[in-house]
Amino acid sequence: MTAPLRLGIAGLGTVGVGVVRILRKRAALLSARTGRDISISAVSARDATKDRGVNLSSYAWEDDPVALATRDDVDVFVELMGGSEGAARDATEAALAAGKHVVTANKALLAIHGQALAEQAEAAGLMIRYEAAVAGGIPVIKALLEGLAGNEITRVMGVMNGTCNYILTRMEADGLGYEALFEEAGKLGYLEADPTLDVGGIDAGHKLAILSSIAFGTRVNFDAVELEGIQRIELEDIRQAADMGYRIKLLGLAQRTARGLEQRMQPCLVPANSPLGQLEGGTNMVVIEGDAVEQVVLRGPGAGEGPTASAVVGDICDLARGMRVPVFGQPATTLEAARPAQSGLPAPYYLRMALMDKPGALAKIATALGEAGISINRMRQYGHSEPTAPVLIVTHKTTRAALDMALSAMQETGVLAGDPVALRIENL
Amino acid sequence: MTAPLRLGIAGLGTVGVGVVRILRKRAALLSARTGRDISISAVSARDATKDRGVNLSSYAWEDDPVALATRDDVDVFVELMGGSEGAARDATEAALAAGKHVVTANKALLAIHGQALAEQAEAAGLMIRYEAAVAGGIPVIKALLEGLAGNEITRVMGVMNGTCNYILTRMEADGLGYEALFEEAGKLGYLEADPTLDVGGIDAGHKLAILSSIAFGTRVNFDAVELEGIQRIELEDIRQAADMGYRIKLLGLAQRTARGLEQRMQPCLVPANSPLGQLEGGTNMVVIEGDAVEQVVLRGPGAGEGPTASAVVGDICDLARGMRVPVFGQPATTLEAARPAQSGLPAPYYLRMALMDKPGALAKIATALGEAGISINRMRQYGHSEPTAPVLIVTHKTTRAALDMALSAMQETGVLAGDPVALRIENL
Repeated sequence: MTAPLRLGIAGLGTVGVGVVRILRKRAALLSARTGRDISISAVSARDATKDRGVNLSSYAWEDDPVALATRDDVDVFVELMGGSEGAARDATEAALAAGKHVVTANKALLAIHGQALAEQAEAAGLMIRYEAAVAGGIPVIKALLEGLAGNEITRVMGVMNGTCNYILTRMEADGLGYEALFEEAGKLGYLEADPTLDVGGIDAGHKLAILSSIAFGTRVNFDAVELEGIQRIELEDIRQAADMGYRIKLLGLAQRTARGLEQRMQPCLVPANSPLGQLEGGTNMVVIEGDAVEQVVLRGPGAGEGPTASAVVGDICDLARGMRVPVFGQPATTLEAARPAQSGLPAPYYLRMALMDKPGALAKIATALGEAGISINRMRQYGHSEPTAPVLIVTHKTTRAALDMALSAMQETGVLAGDPVALRIENL
Repeated sequence: MTAPLRLGIAGLGTVGVGVVRILRKRAALLSARTGRDISISAVSARDATKDRGVNLSSYAWEDDPVALATRDDVDVFVELMGGSEGAARDATEAALAAGKHVVTANKALLAIHGQALAEQAEAAGLMIRYEAAVAGGIPVIKALLEGLAGNEITRVMGVMNGTCNYILTRMEADGLGYEALFEEAGKLGYLEADPTLDVGGIDAGHKLAILSSIAFGTRVNFDAVELEGIQRIELEDIRQAADMGYRIKLLGLAQRTARGLEQRMQPCLVPANSPLGQLEGGTNMVVIEGDAVEQVVLRGPGAGEGPTASAVVGDICDLARGMRVPVFGQPATTLEAARPAQSGLPAPYYLRMALMDKPGALAKIATALGEAGISINRMRQYGHSEPTAPVLIVTHKTTRAALDMALSAMQETGVLAGDPVALRIENL
C-alpha cells in the first residue's frame, strides 16, 4: 500500500466540518477505494476554541493558513475559507510554492486568479481540484474535464445559485415579495457574508466563468460575464411570467459565437414545464451540450454540508489515486484569451416599466421600440393608484443590441419613471 | 510530450465508426487535453470490404480480434463488438493477458464476466474502462467511481434502455400498440440483434448490475437482478396509468437492505410529473443517492453514434492521462458477494387480469387479495365483448411477497384467463 495522503484543511465552517466528518466516518471505505489511507495532519480556522461538534484534538492546529499550507506533513492543501483575496489566496499560492496539491471550494479565487494559479500549479507539476466550487454536490467539473473530454463543447447553461433559486421559487409558491424572502434567506444562513455575491449573480457568475474556461479552452474571464442580479424582480414579474407559462430563473449561459465568447448570468424567463423551469429551491442544474454527446443534464444539491463535502472528498480521492489532469482541462499556458461577445442571438424580451401619467406616454414607448425595429407581441397598461402607470410589454424576437437602443431612446422621452426591467425569454 | 497512446479498435459498427471519427476530427484537441497524441494502430471487424463512410486505409487491418488485441503496437484494446461470449470475451482476455488496457462498451460482458476480468486486469496492473456500457453518453460510471467516491451510496435508480422508453413513450403519445411499435423500432434499427435483450429488460439489467457493483462494493451479479420486460404492457395499461397521473417506465433500482442487496429492473408506474415520468424517447436518466450528496440526477442520450462514442473517447482520454482506478471502484478481490434480496419495501401495485365470465369470479379474486392481507384501493371491471372480462385493480401498499402469495392463490381459483400483469407503483 502507498503511503497515506496527508491533508491540511483550512477553514472549518459547514463544509470544512463536513469534510472532516466524511474522512473520519468513511476512512475504511476511502482507503479501499483509493488504495491508501487519507489522513488529516493539521487544520486551521479563525477561532481555535469554538465547538464545531467534531473532535479535532488529534490534528495539529495552525492559526495561520499559510503555515498550515506549507507544513512538511501536508501533501494536499484543502482550502475551504473562501474569498478571492487575503488568506485564501495567500495560502493557496504558498501551498503551490511549497509543492502541495490544492483542493478548493473557492469559486471567487478561481474566477479571479484561476489563470495565474493554474500556471503556477502546472509549472510545478501540481494539481488544483475544485469540484465543490461549482454546483455543490454535482460532479460537473469532472464531467466537463474528463467524462466529456472527447467533445467540442458547444454550450453550457445552468442554474447555479441555490439562494437565488430559493428566493425566486418561494416568491411564486408563497406569493411573498423579494425583500421578505431576502430577509428570510439571511436568517436561514443561505446568504453569503456579502449577500450581493448571491442575489447580484456574482457567485453564479464566478461559477459560469470557471465552466466556460474548461468548456471552451479559454482563460477564465469573470469580468467578461454579462451580469445581472435578481434584486429588481418583483412579485408582479413572477406572476406575469407564470401567466404566460414561464418561470423566472437566474440562468447562466456560455457559448462560442462567431463574434467571440458569450457569457451571461441573468434572470430570464424559461418555460415553466422545462427541466430548468421546474427546478425548485436550492437545487442546481447544469446543461452541457457537446458535438458528440448532444446534451447531458446534471441536477443535484447546490450547497449544504454533505453535498459540498462530497465534492471536496471526491477531489481528495482523485489525488489519492494519483490522477493528473490540467486545472482547466488543457495546459493553462495554452488557454486562449477569448474575445467577449454580447449575445447576438435574437430572443423575445419581457419588459416592465413605470410611465409618468401623461397623455402620449405609452405612444412614445411604442415608438421607441418601433424605431429600433422591435415589434410588440403583447402590451398591457394597468389600472393604478400611484402617480405612475405600470406597463408590461412582451416583444417579438429582437437582439440585445436593438433592445438597448430602444431602452436608451425610451429614457430620452422623459416619460419613464426609473429604469425598466428587461428579461430575456429563453425558450429552451 | 509523452509517447502516443496507440489503440486497436475491434468492432466498426455505429459506435466504432463514431470513435474513429472523433479521434480523427478532434486529434489536436485531444492531444491538448491529454498531453499526448492518441493514434489508431489497427482495426478489426467482420467485413473488411464494407464501406463505412470513414477512411480506414491508414490503419492495419486484422480479421481476428484476438490478433488485434495482442499486437505489439497496441497499448489499449477498444472492444466495441458486443456480446458476453465469443470474440468479445476472447479478445478482452487476450488483451489483458498481453498487458493492454481495455476500453469497452460491452455491458453484457461486464455483467456476466466482470468479476473475473477485473481480477485479471488488476493482477496485471491494468485498467478496464466502460463508460459507454451504461447510459450512453452520460458520464455516470465516472460519477459513481470517482466524483461520488466520498459517499456511501444508498440507492441507484434509473431508466437505462432507450428502446423500451421509446416504445412506452410512443404508446402513450400516439396510441399505438406494443406490437406495432416493436416492429417500428426494429425497422429503425433501435433493437439489439436479439430484441429480447432490449424489451426483455436484459440489457438494462446488465447495466443495473454494473452500477450496483460500483455503488455497493459488491461482485457484479446479474443473475440476482429481478428482471421483467415490457412485452406484456398493453395500451390499456398505459391509459389507465395516465388516468391516475402515472407513466409506465422500465425502471431499475438497486439498494442495500438489511436482508441483502435488492436489484430489480421492471416496468413500474411512476408519477407522470416526476423527472423519471417525464423522460421521453431514447433519453436515459440515472438517479444516484449517497449519504453525503443526497441525490444527484444525470440525464442524457442513452445510445447513438455520437453519445456512445463520446463515452468511449472519454475513457481513452482517462487512459492517455494515466488515470488508475480499480475497475469497480475498489480492488476486485475485495468486492463482497452480496446476498440477493427481494424488495421488502411495501408499495401499491397495479394489477390487470382477465377473468372467466362466471358468477363469483370477481369475489374469488378479491378474497385471494384479502387473505394475503392486501386491501384494494380501486377495482374496475370492464364492459366487454370477449368471453373473458378485463379487471383492473390498484392495491394499497403491500409487499411483493404478499402479492406473490395472492397471485398464486388467484391462479388456484380457476377463474383467471392467463397470467395477471402486476406493476409496482413507485411514488418517487
